[in-house]
Order: sequence, then C-alpha cells, then structure tokens
Amino acid sequence: MSNLPNALEVLVEKFAALPGIGQKSAQRLAFHLLSLSDEDAASFADAIVDAKRSIHFCAVCQNYTDAEICPICSSPRRDERVICVVADPKDVAAIERAHEFNGHYHVLHGVISPMKRIGPDDIKIKELVDRVASGNVDEIIMATNPDTEGETTAKYISRLLKPFGVKVTRLASGIPVGADLEFADDATLMRALEGRSEML
Amino acid sequence: MSNLPNALEVLVEKFAALPGIGQKSAQRLAFHLLSLSDEDAASFADAIVDAKRSIHFCAVCQNYTDAEICPICSSPRRDERVICVVADPKDVAAIERAHEFNGHYHVLHGVISPMKRIGPDDIKIKELVDRVASGNVDEIIMATNPDTEGETTAKYISRLLKPFGVKVTRLASGIPVGADLEFADDATLMRALEGRSEML
Repeated sequence: MSNLPNALEVLVEKFAALPGIGQKSAQRLAFHLLSLSDEDAASFADAIVDAKRSIHFCAVCQNYTDAEICPICSSPRRDERVICVVADPKDVAAIERAHEFNGHYHVLHGVISPMKRIGPDDIKIKELVDRVASGNVDEIIMATNPDTEGETTAKYISRLLKPFGVKVTRLASGIPVGADLEFADDATLMRALEGRSEML
Repeated sequence: MSNLPNALEVLVEKFAALPGIGQKSAQRLAFHLLSLSDEDAASFADAIVDAKRSIHFCAVCQNYTDAEICPICSSPRRDERVICVVADPKDVAAIERAHEFNGHYHVLHGVISPMKRIGPDDIKIKELVDRVASGNVDEIIMATNPDTEGETTAKYISRLLKPFGVKVTRLASGIPVGADLEFADDATLMRALEGRSEML
C-alpha cells in the first residue's frame, strides 16, 4: 500500500510518465512541487497550460512557434534554398546550438516506423514535398537519426524528392551510429554538417 | 540566442529549476509536454494545482495528507508510543517501504542549519515537543540523515526532550555516512532500525 495522499500519488504518476523519469525521481519532483509556495506551484501549472495554448506548428517548417511563421523561416538572414529535415523540434535546437547551419528547417514530427505503425502520412512529409514543389529549394539535408528508422525515413524522402531535381544530402556519420542526434556535442554536429554527402 | 518560443522557454526554465533536472533534460521534458494532447497536458497542470490545494500537513505528525489527520496517525494498528522523527516527507515514504516500523512519525520539514540560516524555530520541533509533553510517548527514534546537519538536529532535539524522561534513540549507522536516507535500500533501512541505539 502507498501511504501517499491520492492527489500526491496522481502527481507522482504524471512525473513518472515523463521520459527518463523513474519512480523515485518522480516522487522527489512531486514532493519538491508540494514544497513550493502556492504561487510558484501555480506558475508551474500555468507554464504548462500557456505553452500548450500559445505554441503550435510553424506554417512553413512545422517547428514549434508562437507566431504564424517561426523566427527562422521569417529571418531574411537565413538561406531558404537549403532545408535541413529533422525528426523532432529538439533536433532543431541541437543543430542551432552548433551555430554552423544557416538554412531553413523542416520538422517531420516523427520517423517512418512500421513497428510503431507510423507511416509516411503520419508525419509531415507532404508539407515538405509541397515546399520543394513550390520551387526555390536547392538542397535538402536529411538529418534524421542514423538508426534504422531514421535511415528508412531519409531514403523514403530522398526517393520521393528525386522527380523535383533537388539535391538531397545526408548528415555525415560523425554522429555515432545508434546514438541520438539530440545528445551530440557541437563539434560532432559541426563535422557531420561539413561532411554531408549526396544521397544517390 | 535561443530559438525557442517564449512560452516554451518559460516551461523549460520551470523544469530546470526542479532538483536533479539539468538544462537538456528540462528541454526534453518541456518538448514532451508539448507533444501531449491538450487533455493530457491540462491534466498534468491540474495534478499540480490539485496536489497543492488538497494536500497540507497532518495536524499530528506534520506529514503531507489530504485529511486532517493522516492515515498513519489515525490507524489503530500503529503504535503511538514510538515516534520516528524525520527531516522530510520523502523519508517517511522510504521507511514505510521497508515495512519494518510500526510506530508513528514526526516530520520536521527540514534540519537545523546555521549555514542556511535555518534555526530550531524554522522547523517543526515545537510540535514534536508538544506531542512528547502530552505524554503517552515511550521512545523517540531520531531518523535524520547521518550528516552534519542531521546529527546536529538529532542532538539538539535529544537534549530538548531529556526533561520529559522519554527514551531517545538514533538510527544505527547502517546508512552510509554522507548518503541520503531517501535513497537507502530496504535492507539497509531495516538494519538501521533494528540496530538503533539510545542517545546519551
């Protein structure tokens, strides 16, 4: 039997459902929130609600933004002829930290995965094709993770874009195979960008 | 410059302020919350608000509860003549997991720490003295962490309770010195309870 009051148990379970948070950490976090002032706890709850309410997908690149078009897509200083395609908004943040890439992004919000029953129509591939079809794109850099699903997705998109005559490249394997792009250090990401190769 | 929308940045900072959560984990958690459905995100926020609203200190032992008196203090099967004094609600949960202790608790909500300017009046010591003064208590088990502040607090309380003629014991040092009681395994906690010694 758990001796925690019900509302606390519920809060622990919410934290335990987050990625990378085990049962003990979840309990620690829930207790910490209880120890906050009413104002601070409320402001934590508000931050969640505010983020969900004000943030949506950029109409162009599908990254999270609170505007209609995100700052990267609307910046006059970024090269719109190069689009870096990533699986996840986290990956945009990771590549931006490397300060090496000055083009645009496209966020797929997932990768093709037959195991998880995620098909091409379940992620933002159509939106990418529309961008390429509208012209003005010279190069697509496929920056999905170098694992099975990431490779499959990169190959699928590469074939899909062939008819448009656009150059499709793949991040160089500076990133250790099997690792997660999100956790690559800046130097590795930089080398991977510099050594990118065309997909044939 | 951060490319995250403001509301997302705020949410990341909230997570990063939690104990044991670094900047990258905070970002990962915030992105995860954004990927939840509106209902799931709202229910996370509600869990925080509900926990803060419905949970307060037990009128007797000062542990978190949603009742006036917590289930342990109101249980007829627990021995009210033995009180285990802990620094933190987390420590009650840890000792309960060992299934070895059948008495009552007293939660101090902190330890005496001159460094952090926390004095005896800043934690729930007066409430403990009142419980002992009201009689019916045979033994006080001091179960604060075996570090400097925990030892100081245990000694301070032990001296304070001397006039009442109550037996004051200390958890046996089965717990590695310098470690945190919360993370002790059940066997270690069990041995520490069995080998407790009287404070002289």
